[in-house]
Amino acid sequence: MNDHTEAPSARTRVRRVATNAHYDAATLNAIIDAAYLCHIAFTDSTGAHCIPTACWRDGAYLYIHGSNGSRMLKRLQESDACVTITHVDGLVMARSAFSHSMNYRSAMIYGRFEVVADEAARRKAMEDFMEQLLPGRQAEVRPGSDKEYAATTVMRIALDEAACKVRSGGPKDDEEDLSWPAWAGVLPFAQTRLAPVADAACAIEAPAHVTGWQNG
Amino acid sequence: MNDHTEAPSARTRVRRVATNAHYDAATLNAIIDAAYLCHIAFTDSTGAHCIPTACWRDGAYLYIHGSNGSRMLKRLQESDACVTITHVDGLVMARSAFSHSMNYRSAMIYGRFEVVADEAARRKAMEDFMEQLLPGRQAEVRPGSDKEYAATTVMRIALDEAACKVRSGGPKDDEEDLSWPAWAGVLPFAQTRLAPVADAACAIEAPAHVTGWQNG
Repeated sequence: MNDHTEAPSARTRVRRVATNAHYDAATLNAIIDAAYLCHIAFTDSTGAHCIPTACWRDGAYLYIHGSNGSRMLKRLQESDACVTITHVDGLVMARSAFSHSMNYRSAMIYGRFEVVADEAARRKAMEDFMEQLLPGRQAEVRPGSDKEYAATTVMRIALDEAACKVRSGGPKDDEEDLSWPAWAGVLPFAQTRLAPVADAACAIEAPAHVTGWQNG
Repeated sequence: MNDHTEAPSARTRVRRVATNAHYDAATLNAIIDAAYLCHIAFTDSTGAHCIPTACWRDGAYLYIHGSNGSRMLKRLQESDACVTITHVDGLVMARSAFSHSMNYRSAMIYGRFEVVADEAARRKAMEDFMEQLLPGRQAEVRPGSDKEYAATTVMRIALDEAACKVRSGGPKDDEEDLSWPAWAGVLPFAQTRLAPVADAACAIEAPAHVTGWQNG
């Protein structure tokens, strides 16, 4: 991911609207860090599967976790996967029907997941996950027990074979369509944070990481 | 998808937290109709891929479209795929680290895509897509030409082999963790609509489907 202009492999080279392709780490990291989950494509004896799962990043790796019994986590140790994250930012309204588009930021990562086998590294990864979701939370909750950690598999995939595709801005009508009398522009989306909802049985005053949620 | 309690096939049977599984059409349709895009897992000679693409529903089919030259659309005619849609609704904060969760609505659809070969059906499908994105828009834009339609492939997959998984509500701590002094509850998300941004070259007054965007 050191080169901003060349794909790191044949299967990551963007071919459709290649001008929207990005291969640099800054673009990739920003897309991952804005995501709470990814979709993972992998195959087993019954075919291809596309499974959503929570993810987080530490350095040049994307992490996932799950139960030791997870069929996906077992299978990911045996063959390559493709991890995709997509953020939809808006509908792009052009004057011509076929020039309509969407604004988005997407990342695809190829490679083989590896198990984080070292126990200290696994604990640190899970604590990083919590801290990234909500800074300050890890120190307040009942920490994981040895049994809970032992039942959990943490896996990571290197970010060195990846491609991003980003579209932003307004419509790009053909010259001859510009005079067509239709409104043109962008109808944007945002993922916003709503007010925290305390559990009915919770009598604890909300800490800063909860009261600050909507401004985060 | 007529049976609300039984998975339609072995590969759609939810095994982890099976109490969150739903196999009825109403749940599936609502998840699809709330989505602008899906992720499609498929394989080719280079392995598994996970590609995001716009989707829409008509009756008991999910539709996608793309250029005739799309490698994915060609490949989807040759082998089964898995289509997944996921909406993240919130972070679930429990008293115990390992009881944390997310609220989400997800759908997985398995099967083989088929090309909508009939030209009239293809045009209708594309017009349906536009009407679902923004009712009233199709009548205002420069319609697709014969050449544009001829360069576009529309495909659909039946919704008869699908499974949904939905989590909602607050944390579910174990009894012995309920007294741990950590705030517990849900930090919710919503995908919200921001104000329309007109193209700089657009002098057309915004129609109702644009001015009403944020209330839609």
